[in-house]
Order: sequence, then structure tokens, then C-alpha cells
Amino acid sequence: MINTEELEDRKEMVEACIKDGDSKKLNEIFSDMEAIDFAQIVEALEDEEIPKVMQLLNDENRTALMEESSDEMRIRLAKTLDNHALLDMFADMQKDDIVDMLGDFPTGRRKEVLNLMKADDRKIITNLLQYPEESAGGLMSTAYLALNENLTVSEGIHKIHEIGPKTEVIEIIYVTDRTHRLTGTVDLRDLLSSPGSKLIRDIMHDNVIYVTPEVDQEEVAKLVSRYDLQAIPVVSAKKQLLGIITVDDVIDVIIQEHDEDMLQMAGVSSEESLKTSLGQSIRFRLPWLLVNLATAFLASFTVKAFESTINKVVALSAIMTIVSGMGGNAGTQTMSVLVRELSHNKITFAEAMKGFFKEILLGIINGAANGLVTGVIVWLIYGNFYLGVIVFIAMIGNMIVAGVFGFLVPVVLDKIHADPAVASSIFVTTATDVLGFFIFLGLARLTLPLLLGA
Amino acid sequence: MINTEELEDRKEMVEACIKDGDSKKLNEIFSDMEAIDFAQIVEALEDEEIPKVMQLLNDENRTALMEESSDEMRIRLAKTLDNHALLDMFADMQKDDIVDMLGDFPTGRRKEVLNLMKADDRKIITNLLQYPEESAGGLMSTAYLALNENLTVSEGIHKIHEIGPKTEVIEIIYVTDRTHRLTGTVDLRDLLSSPGSKLIRDIMHDNVIYVTPEVDQEEVAKLVSRYDLQAIPVVSAKKQLLGIITVDDVIDVIIQEHDEDMLQMAGVSSEESLKTSLGQSIRFRLPWLLVNLATAFLASFTVKAFESTINKVVALSAIMTIVSGMGGNAGTQTMSVLVRELSHNKITFAEAMKGFFKEILLGIINGAANGLVTGVIVWLIYGNFYLGVIVFIAMIGNMIVAGVFGFLVPVVLDKIHADPAVASSIFVTTATDVLGFFIFLGLARLTLPLLLGA
Repeated sequence: MINTEELEDRKEMVEACIKDGDSKKLNEIFSDMEAIDFAQIVEALEDEEIPKVMQLLNDENRTALMEESSDEMRIRLAKTLDNHALLDMFADMQKDDIVDMLGDFPTGRRKEVLNLMKADDRKIITNLLQYPEESAGGLMSTAYLALNENLTVSEGIHKIHEIGPKTEVIEIIYVTDRTHRLTGTVDLRDLLSSPGSKLIRDIMHDNVIYVTPEVDQEEVAKLVSRYDLQAIPVVSAKKQLLGIITVDDVIDVIIQEHDEDMLQMAGVSSEESLKTSLGQSIRFRLPWLLVNLATAFLASFTVKAFESTINKVVALSAIMTIVSGMGGNAGTQTMSVLVRELSHNKITFAEAMKGFFKEILLGIINGAANGLVTGVIVWLIYGNFYLGVIVFIAMIGNMIVAGVFGFLVPVVLDKIHADPAVASSIFVTTATDVLGFFIFLGLARLTLPLLLGA
Repeated sequence: MINTEELEDRKEMVEACIKDGDSKKLNEIFSDMEAIDFAQIVEALEDEEIPKVMQLLNDENRTALMEESSDEMRIRLAKTLDNHALLDMFADMQKDDIVDMLGDFPTGRRKEVLNLMKADDRKIITNLLQYPEESAGGLMSTAYLALNENLTVSEGIHKIHEIGPKTEVIEIIYVTDRTHRLTGTVDLRDLLSSPGSKLIRDIMHDNVIYVTPEVDQEEVAKLVSRYDLQAIPVVSAKKQLLGIITVDDVIDVIIQEHDEDMLQMAGVSSEESLKTSLGQSIRFRLPWLLVNLATAFLASFTVKAFESTINKVVALSAIMTIVSGMGGNAGTQTMSVLVRELSHNKITFAEAMKGFFKEILLGIINGAANGLVTGVIVWLIYGNFYLGVIVFIAMIGNMIVAGVFGFLVPVVLDKIHADPAVASSIFVTTATDVLGFFIFLGLARLTLPLLLGA
């Protein structure tokens, strides 16, 4: 709820506080805004200002700043604290946030900090650290609310008063048996409106949707969004409750996966941003460009094979780029529809066949429409009727190529468990480039006497 | 929590129930799975099976099916019910779901149904219907939990027992003054753990993040994800509480906007799916192809202007496509980073200048790397050193073009409030095509004596 100008204003105020060493004012500014907005200001500060901010903030605000900062920033902030100050801060943080932070630490420091922890905290944290960051285990929080199924409703409500304040979700309560196996969930509303003597077991829902810790975060996000969950429990192979993943973390996952899709489709690392250094950007982007260069040469060699034809009808060189380019555009359209479909739904064989033939028909019709326009313009400009006819036919041919490859490439990539969003585009445009040139220039070579005689 | 095979099995069971008119079995199947999974099965049924399913389901399941169905499907389901059956169903549905449905109805039927409603229901629904579907008003639910700030904690808890079961969110309680103006929020945890005689006013948080009804859904999603909200209140200009938007609806918005971005970037309507009819697909895709055709002609005319040069060195026609294509790839990379950045953050002028110069440097370096590889290969294949040199220089030139346009196009589109995700790509690739051909062929014309003399 803060706009860019206000943020700039506050930034100047924060910088003034740093300069004056005004701890009181700085904490007031912090308390007056959302922690994440303050974190954005800190993100933009100079390196030498960071330790001063951390020094001037009180414990509570320092922890809140840490919690709302990006991974990169947390490391910068942590560097300004010694191990004991870090441990003090951890005492007020959720275990999953601590794990996220430690996971990004250099191994040496991580070990130091772990060794200083209390034994049972260390055990929980070490346990959580074993899961990959992008798995259900890496996302889960241990601050859930679980009740034994044999408690009565009033015993349950009493326990909630006690442990509720420390948990992330209170609306859904997880129910476990004696061996801590997940057996159901209770809606807090039902708990509050049931007679106190009833057993929790008797008011719980026993169809619980859950995941195991190794499940990928994208799958977690799909389940939470499909079933409108507030949180999803994570259980062991024996169905023992290990933690929960809350919806706010799921939203972050969805946005992150979205950005990854979009950037990777364009051959950019999902880690790249405006602030990425020049060297890093080169490392991210150059390899993809070199892969594309190889495919560009493929297309170039196709043209080269028809040099003698082009030498006789030089107009071909200007027109061939229209045929290849339009095929690329049409192929991208088909591919995008398929990538979206594959990311949300399973496609049955019958649906696939129907869709495939539709794309071919669409290629013929869109090819004919674009081919007609192009053919007529070419005929008028170059005064060569047969050149127009060739463009017309080649456009239809290349749009069929676009439909076929735009459809099959994502489907095949999905079948072999590659991400269609990432790799489809290079195969599709290579096909429409190479085959687009081949069809158009091939037709020109076959009809050369007509083209020259006109 | 159901896989494709299980879903196919259940579908066969559902079809058998329809054939046998087995209402009991059908309702058992329904109760045994999540409503949204059942809805997916119904989605795949034949038209003539739909009325039978609706007839066989009991009231509760029929309503649940309706709630979990897609917009399109809801209309198909509603057609099988007369107005009175519809009204019976509405009695069990949330107001915002009813509004969503009525919004998709033909005007005639909508009026009929509205006229049959109780006066106060009609008033609420008509009021909600005025907001566009993709605005905060169109998304909001009126099933929120609001307490007067002057109640005591125990009065508040008593009220929650009463109205809690009918609300969508219970963890966050909205606090209003006498005139129903939003003054704060209370966390249920704080309410449960505070002394009963305390006033709600004294335990509430008064920094509430809210939106007004006309705010776009994308902005709503940004606020909810940035501030990790469970729900965001919607208030009038006078700050009177109108409704809330819950996080599950926000997730749907985020996924929808993601799909829109991805599809529109490729020139496909966000409404298109595998099931879209051929005619509809043509209407969605052909206009974009024709726009691209115009830009393809621009590039083609650039090549045509250099026909006499190509006529002398026909190898140029095969090589020019490498220069233009690689520029397009590099431009797409830059553009994607910018589009992502613009969708999440405000970029300050200083950041923009720094980023812009980085992109130009990156263009020079990536251009030199790709140009060197291409130049050497061209030199070896065509045995013409100067041809290699020209490719090298043109590649650097076009990658600078890619950096400049890949950066400026999204920034300018964002400034003029157009969606950079949708329109950037066509401008950027037109620039890299036209200028790529122009730089390469222009250099070739200038150095023609060298090229021919080699």
C-alpha cells in the first residue's frame, strides 16, 4: 500500500537516520510501514550502510527485516552479525525460514551456527536441511497445529489457546493418531460449534490431501490451487505428519515458476534480473545464443543449397524471409496453446489426435489467407504471377509444418519428461526456418522455367 | 489426489450410473472424491448425459458440482434446471459464485432469475453484478467476518460462534465502526488469547491493506502476494467494508494472468485451448498473423533494396538470415528480463540507465562472440575473408540493436500503460529483422569491391 514516491521519500529518511545514527527514528519509520516495504528500501542501500541499519534496528524489527528479505539480501544481512547475534535472531524466527537462510550460507558458517544451537533445535534444522529447496520438504514449516484424534472438543480448544499463537495456520487443524500419523483435519469452525464432550475423531474429515517431502514444488502448487487449500500437510512414507506448506509460500512458488517459464522460454536464466552483473548475464545468455547459432546455420545451409536458383531470381532472397518468419509465428502460436494445455491438464490420446488434425487444418486455412495476401502483393511488386503462386503454396506448406511441429514438439518433450515450456521454441522455429526455406526455394527451383519465362 | 487412470475409471463408473439411472451409486461416487475431480469428469461427458447427471445427483452434490465447474460448464449445467430449481441451488451458494454465474447468463434468463429472488438477495446480487469480472468488486465475496470495534472480546467470540460457519475466512476478522467503515483487523489467535472484557478496538491492528472495487485483479494479486495476506478487504470510497477477496481466488487470478501473458506474448487469445473450435481458433490467431505479415514485408523490403548487391554476391542471401535471426534471439532475452522486472518492481531512472548501458555492453560482447564464430565459419566455407569480417561487424551491430530495442520497447510500453508482455515481441523482432538486414547488407554494399576482389 505504498507507492514509488513514498518509497523514495522513506529511503531518504532511512539514509538520514543512518547518517545521524538515529536509532529511535529508524525504528519508528520501520514500525510505520510493512516489513517487506522496509526490506525493499534496505535492498537498495549501499553496502556500507547495511551494517549500520542492522545495528540501529531493535531486535524485533531486525528479525522482521531478515524474514522479509530476499535470499541474496539475507546473506548480506547475516554477514553483519556474529554467530551469537544470529542465534538470538533465530530464536524469534520460524524454523523453515531459518532453514532457508542456513541453506544459502557458506558451509563453514552453517556448521558453526548449527554447532552453537540447542541439541533439539539442531536436530529439527539438520533434518529440514536435507530436503532440496524446491521440494515439499524444503518448503514446509513445522509450525502447524495438530491434535490427537482421541481428545475431546473442549480439550482440543484448550490446546489451541495454548499453541495456536505459535502456528502459521489456525483455521485448519491436523488430526493425528497415537503414532503421529495423519488421520484427518478439523475445521476450526466445526470445532468451535461442536459439543465439548465430542471426540475430535468424530468431527474430523478423513479425506486429506497431502504430499510427501520429495514432491516437487510445482506439484505442490498444483494441488493447493486445484483443491483451494489454505495449507497442505507433508507426511512421511508412513504417513507421519512432518510439516505443512502454507498458501503464501505456494503463491511465491507459482510466481517463481511463472517467471522461470517465461524467462527460460526466451533462453534466459530465471535467476537473471536487472541487477545481474554483466559477467553473470554473459554466462546466462551466451550459451543459449550459441545453441541458436547452430540452428541458424542449419537454416543458412538450406538457403546456400539453392544459391544457383537465387542467382537466377534474386527476388527470392527478399521473399523467402517472409515464408520462414510467418511459419515461425504460426508455430509459436500452436506451441503456446499446447504448452499451456500440458501444464494444466493431462491430454488423452483421442483429444490429441483431434487437436493435431485441427492444427493441420488451421495451418492450411491460415496459410491460405496469409499466402493469398503475400502472393498478390508479390505478384504486384515483382510483376511475376508465378512467383506469387509459389509464395502462396509455400506459405500453406510452411504453416502446415508450423502446426505439425508446434503440436508434436511440446507433446513429445512432455512425454520424455523434459519441460515443454523451455525447449519447444528452438525446435519449432528451426523446423519452420529450415523447412520454410526448403519448400519455398525448392518450389522455385522446380518451376524455374516458369519463373524466368514470365 | 487422483491420477489420470483413476479419473478414467471413475468416468466409466459415472457413465454406467447414467445409463442405469442409478442415483444412489452416482452420489456415492461423488461423495468419495473431491468435487473438482468430479466436475472434471462431467466436463468430458456428452451433451445428452449432462441433464441426466444433474437429475441423479442429490441437492448437496448438485450444488457442489456447480460451484467447482468452469464458467462454460456452469452455463451448460444451468440450462438443465428450471428457474425454481436454480433458485433452490443458489440458496446454498456463496453470493460471489452466484454473481459469477449470472454474469455469464444470457440477459433474458438473468433478469428472470433476478426477478424471482427475494428482494434483499436481489439487491446484493444486482449490486455485485455491476463490477467488471476482472476487478476487485467482481472477485469479492460478501461472506466475511466483521465485528464492531466497540464489542468486547467475549461478545466478539460469541458472535463468531454464530456467524463463523457461514464465512469464508475465520482467521482474520475485520473490525468496523458504527458506520461500517473498516478500522482494523483482529487475528483470531489474539482474540482467543485476550481477556474477555477487553474491547476489540484495543487489540486490533489498524494498518489494514485494502482495495477499492474498481481495482484491477492483477493489482489485487500483487498486494496479496507481496503482503502474504489470507484475504484482502474491499472498501468503498468512504472506506465502508463491501467484501473480501480470499487467497484461493487470488491464486486463480495469478494462474490466469500467467496464462494470458504467455499466450498473448505468442499472439494467441487467452481463451484458446485444445478444445477451441477450428473457426474460433482462426478468429483468434489470424489477425495476429496478418499483423506479423506486415512487419515481415518491412523486413522483406529492406532486403529488396539491396537486390543488386545480393545479385553480385549471392552468398549474402544465405548469411543475412543468421544475422537477423540471432538479433531476434538476443532481443527476446533482453525483453524477457525487462518484462519480468516491470511486472514485479518499479524501476527507478538510475536503475534504468545502468541497465540500459549494461545491455549495450552485453550486445557488444555477445555480438563479438557470436560474430567471431560466424565470421570464421563463413570465411572457411565461402573462402572470403572480408565476408567473414562483415558478418562479425554486423552481428555486433544487430546485437546492440537487440539490446537497445529489447530494453526500450517494454519500458516505453509500460510507461504508456500498454502491457509489455503482449506487444513487446513484435516491435523488438521487427527492429532486429529490419536493422539486421540493413546493417549486414549495407556493409556489404559499402565494401563490395573488397568482397568481389577477394
